[in-house]
Amino acid sequence: MLVAGLGAGHARAEDGHDLWLRYRPLPAAQADAARGHATQLVAGTASATQAVTRAELLRGLGGLLGHAPVPADAVSRDGAIVVGTPASSPLVAGLHLDLHDLGREGYLIRSVVLDGHPATVIAGNDDIGVLYGAFGLLRRLQTGQPIDRLDLRERPRVQLRVLDHWDNLDGSVERGYAGASIWDWWRLPDYLPPRYTDYARANASIGINGTVLNNVNADPLILSHAYLEKVAALAGVFRPYGIRVYLSVRFSAPIEVGGLKTADPLDPQVQRWWRGKADEIYRLIPDFGGFLVKANSEGQPGPQDYHRSHADGANMLAAALAPHGGVVMWRAFVYANKPGEDRIKQAYGEFKPLDGKFAANVLLQVKNGPLDFQPREPFNPLFGAMPKTQLMMEFQITKEYLGFATHLVYLGPLYQEALAADTMEHGKGSTVAKVVDGTLDGHALTGMAGVANIGADRDWCGSVFNQANWYVFGRLAWDPTLSARAIAEEWTRMTFGNDEAVVRPVVDMMMGSREAAVDYMTPLGLAHLMGHGHHYGPEPWDASGPRADWTPVYFHRADKGGIGFDRTASGSDAVAQYAPPVANEFASLRQIPDEYLLWFHHVPWSYRMRSGRTLWDELVRHYTQGVEDVARMRETWAGLKGHIDDERYRQVATFLAIQQREAQWWRDACIAYFQSINGLPLPAGYAPPAHPLKYYQSLSFKYVPGYSAW
Amino acid sequence: MLVAGLGAGHARAEDGHDLWLRYRPLPAAQADAARGHATQLVAGTASATQAVTRAELLRGLGGLLGHAPVPADAVSRDGAIVVGTPASSPLVAGLHLDLHDLGREGYLIRSVVLDGHPATVIAGNDDIGVLYGAFGLLRRLQTGQPIDRLDLRERPRVQLRVLDHWDNLDGSVERGYAGASIWDWWRLPDYLPPRYTDYARANASIGINGTVLNNVNADPLILSHAYLEKVAALAGVFRPYGIRVYLSVRFSAPIEVGGLKTADPLDPQVQRWWRGKADEIYRLIPDFGGFLVKANSEGQPGPQDYHRSHADGANMLAAALAPHGGVVMWRAFVYANKPGEDRIKQAYGEFKPLDGKFAANVLLQVKNGPLDFQPREPFNPLFGAMPKTQLMMEFQITKEYLGFATHLVYLGPLYQEALAADTMEHGKGSTVAKVVDGTLDGHALTGMAGVANIGADRDWCGSVFNQANWYVFGRLAWDPTLSARAIAEEWTRMTFGNDEAVVRPVVDMMMGSREAAVDYMTPLGLAHLMGHGHHYGPEPWDASGPRADWTPVYFHRADKGGIGFDRTASGSDAVAQYAPPVANEFASLRQIPDEYLLWFHHVPWSYRMRSGRTLWDELVRHYTQGVEDVARMRETWAGLKGHIDDERYRQVATFLAIQQREAQWWRDACIAYFQSINGLPLPAGYAPPAHPLKYYQSLSFKYVPGYSAW
Repeated sequence: MLVAGLGAGHARAEDGHDLWLRYRPLPAAQADAARGHATQLVAGTASATQAVTRAELLRGLGGLLGHAPVPADAVSRDGAIVVGTPASSPLVAGLHLDLHDLGREGYLIRSVVLDGHPATVIAGNDDIGVLYGAFGLLRRLQTGQPIDRLDLRERPRVQLRVLDHWDNLDGSVERGYAGASIWDWWRLPDYLPPRYTDYARANASIGINGTVLNNVNADPLILSHAYLEKVAALAGVFRPYGIRVYLSVRFSAPIEVGGLKTADPLDPQVQRWWRGKADEIYRLIPDFGGFLVKANSEGQPGPQDYHRSHADGANMLAAALAPHGGVVMWRAFVYANKPGEDRIKQAYGEFKPLDGKFAANVLLQVKNGPLDFQPREPFNPLFGAMPKTQLMMEFQITKEYLGFATHLVYLGPLYQEALAADTMEHGKGSTVAKVVDGTLDGHALTGMAGVANIGADRDWCGSVFNQANWYVFGRLAWDPTLSARAIAEEWTRMTFGNDEAVVRPVVDMMMGSREAAVDYMTPLGLAHLMGHGHHYGPEPWDASGPRADWTPVYFHRADKGGIGFDRTASGSDAVAQYAPPVANEFASLRQIPDEYLLWFHHVPWSYRMRSGRTLWDELVRHYTQGVEDVARMRETWAGLKGHIDDERYRQVATFLAIQQREAQWWRDACIAYFQSINGLPLPAGYAPPAHPLKYYQSLSFKYVPGYSAW
Repeated sequence: MLVAGLGAGHARAEDGHDLWLRYRPLPAAQADAARGHATQLVAGTASATQAVTRAELLRGLGGLLGHAPVPADAVSRDGAIVVGTPASSPLVAGLHLDLHDLGREGYLIRSVVLDGHPATVIAGNDDIGVLYGAFGLLRRLQTGQPIDRLDLRERPRVQLRVLDHWDNLDGSVERGYAGASIWDWWRLPDYLPPRYTDYARANASIGINGTVLNNVNADPLILSHAYLEKVAALAGVFRPYGIRVYLSVRFSAPIEVGGLKTADPLDPQVQRWWRGKADEIYRLIPDFGGFLVKANSEGQPGPQDYHRSHADGANMLAAALAPHGGVVMWRAFVYANKPGEDRIKQAYGEFKPLDGKFAANVLLQVKNGPLDFQPREPFNPLFGAMPKTQLMMEFQITKEYLGFATHLVYLGPLYQEALAADTMEHGKGSTVAKVVDGTLDGHALTGMAGVANIGADRDWCGSVFNQANWYVFGRLAWDPTLSARAIAEEWTRMTFGNDEAVVRPVVDMMMGSREAAVDYMTPLGLAHLMGHGHHYGPEPWDASGPRADWTPVYFHRADKGGIGFDRTASGSDAVAQYAPPVANEFASLRQIPDEYLLWFHHVPWSYRMRSGRTLWDELVRHYTQGVEDVARMRETWAGLKGHIDDERYRQVATFLAIQQREAQWWRDACIAYFQSINGLPLPAGYAPPAHPLKYYQSLSFKYVPGYSAW
């Protein structure tokens, strides 16, 4: 006993690699209660998905309950778990379950009686639904819930639930803060280390069914046959888990890979080249998902190079993929190559006129906000403005603008805020979530993408708490109406166990963390005050090239008189891109919520806020509040010492210390800078910045992770 | 029992992370026998090194024997292990052991009687010697040897046993094939993940006592205060394990970091700057090891930029370090910036005249051969030519020219061949090993460096078998007279267990692997036929820029008449750099061993070899033999299926398949090319290349690991 104990103790260090699939033993009482409902496992192995479903249940139940159910061909005692589809399992077929509304990916878990024995059935119309059901049952156990008297029905509300990897073929990850790329392109297609399978398991467990393997700033080499063989090898690992691979493609690939002289989407040779390439891909990968395209954006080539529209470009690719069932995810993140019009207005200007012009297998992939993954943005006005187009949400999971891997910022509230925003397209209740899940305008093909925060670090995400952002993305893609708090609690229980002394404080800490980051970075509607290019730390003073709308001063517009970007009719009139009730609210100084104030208005420093404070005092208060909130998070965490294993406790404690230091830096640098503009004293009781402004301006950073090639 | 068993089975997958310190349970008979000699552990914790020694013994013995010895303050029963120095342990002091010849790092392990009980003592003059002794005892157990009736004395024969990491501050590793750098510079000095400790444990277990953290192509930023604080944090982790940190420094750092106008080593300001920098470093890291310098080599700055000698440069740095006890490791890998004289002659030409001119704390770091880590080279003629200079060996552990991470090539035989080479400096027996360990010319300060093959890959080295090269380097640095086979056997037992059905075939495979690589890449004294820059695959036809002596054609000199580089008196006369008996042997076509033939001679294709075959036929035979040897390695490995855990079995099987494919490619491409030069038919019975020469010449590779920035 000691042997195994010692060995296990040593090797099962909580290094984060198991993510939320840790399957550590449940407390005895819960395990005892559940064990009677997991005595036998009747599950097929006729397909690869069936085999991995069975293996996952044996592994999960074995770990959680202390022993795995006995594999069996029939139910011969109380407490069997029966798994399958009506087609794969005569037992399931015999139950005549009503599965008609579950689709291909939905599942049902029900406590039934089979051959006179109480049993639990996990059923779906397709193997993949059953796999999701298996993970659903395991999640119940992991979160401390009983597994008797079950009657659960689940199906995803969004069809394509996709991770976008901004991974380069050289092993670097753009905006990646968790080490190198997990894709070992050099040793593919031969070598398939276990982490590829673990990646698929983790994704399947939260319902993610697609992965875009490479950066949207795409290297055309990915479309060479040699690389497609590597892609096919990965697709083979992921297939049993219901995950399709997609590729980011460079619009000019017909020139670079195909040797053509043009990439004009209306050129028949170009169209033929893409059709041939699609055919080649599908010969290697019959269930290939499709293409993700960043075109005519930040220097990338695109159809406008040939005076064609985004729709011309997207539809040409869509035509090549359509015969095989593939889709095009065309990004709406565009702005002119030379600054002119308010940057955040440009995507709307370019795409709204194209509403209804996209082929049936095109999704327009729209970032949650109109700028670029800031700590807080109002929702993107394209949501609600293109009813005849399938809009797909693009969230960022990696924290490019939110403190990288070391800041504890749970993104659930950010995602939920964006999804719950009301576009008012068809009156009240026309939420972004309903645009995304297709119910608002009756779209069947729907999607949600998250820019992955995954790298080769042992814990995948660069910190334990970043794993929660991967998790919440998947869960919200499955069901955009879930609450961020409920998901945080699920994740916490699965990640740290069901000790109530841990769960509540951790969830509270997570739920407050995003607002803390907004406060210490960009409160009251400010945006993009981050360091030039690398986006690390505060540089609100930055006005350097190469273009104005990449600089903080462009966005905050602080001057002696006030601060903020006038986007009302007297300014850029970006408000007009929203439906009238929303536009009116945002345009009205009286109605606009504080959190969006400076996004839409240039406001005098002395402006009296709802709180009664002046804008300047309120700004200082928010910056200070952010730092204090992080200090409180540290205290909370310190209080959990002894309740958390040593390795994870220390990692989080270390990162919280970094976060507090950097939050203070953010506050002090921003206050010092804005004070240099407005010349105002700090409100009473607020500490001055630790250093003079010059100090903060003198800081420079090299080798910032995630930025530029390694 | 099942709980722990299941849990352990899952988590203790053989993913290679534990290296040779796996501590898996020994077979029952051996464990039973040994358990009686490990009942109690009397070990201090007064110093950090004592604490880690005690922890390692508890962990190792607990894993190997099924339960750890009981920590105790005194010997109260038979079978105690007593650990310490005469100063740290009254029990050890009371034994009055003869430790006088063990130095600071040596140890003694002896079966004794203490207070009437049979016991085992591990003793040394210093804590670090005792730690080495603890690893020595564990190694005995791991390799299946009894631990009773022990009387072992060990001390290292080489003083500085150092890993050189060619790791860049951006996270890439020059010539690294095991993922990104293990140093997470961004999150240092705060975050110290467990892998830093595991790295130190692994190194200490084989006696490595120094690590150069950064690439010899050094970024001056490493000398900034912010980075020195990061270095100090790593030094703090390594210190208990007896490992000192060293840094590669850029000779021009006084300009780049210090803001001076010159880096002239005779400039008083420059000297002052380096002294100040050294003082700053030692304030942070009191046991800092010193500097490694690549100067005036491949574009790096150096003293010659100021018309000063290598000795001027090295001695200036040495003067800055001397007050603190630091050393300078000055690399002898230099050749003129413009090709002229035979490249391999140049280092000798530059350095031999400086013999005796280096300060007492300078070591000249000399690669094993005169070219650059080829599969086979004759020994470097600097060994034996500079008796008044402390020469330190530089081996390459990472396989830049030996198939990267995927080829199974055990480097023990290469290292042993180099160390056993006889310089004849003082007559027969004047081996390179005796130069390196200082005994030949009476040097006290000695060293051996290995260019690390370590990266962030879970298994550290990119493959299980590459771990053996790290291991054998450490063991040979400890004792250059050990046999490569004996070390291979040690490693195999520690890595795969003591199943004799595994040990013998694996050791045989390892021992033959390097000769196989020589045969399929560069047989009969050929060198540097590898792909341009990235060094992947064969490109014997390459004659591209920017300099002739980086191209294969420069080295093989194949023409219609013959092949090989005439380095006798009729050619470059490089032979004259060796002592006369060696020079005569190499210069004589009749005496020179086949394996060095084409290194020193340009020989007609029809030349009759000792075997009776023509040179051409012999060349084809060697190339073919290399491929056949790899095929046999695959067969051997396939025969071990079931004896090796699944994860490692599959990884090795996959890599051997890649190796066979690439060996065939090497053979076919080289034969096709040389045949295009000499127009000769293949000898009877030898298969022609699979493709025409043009095919091999058409292959190109992007994103080759280890080459250029990521």
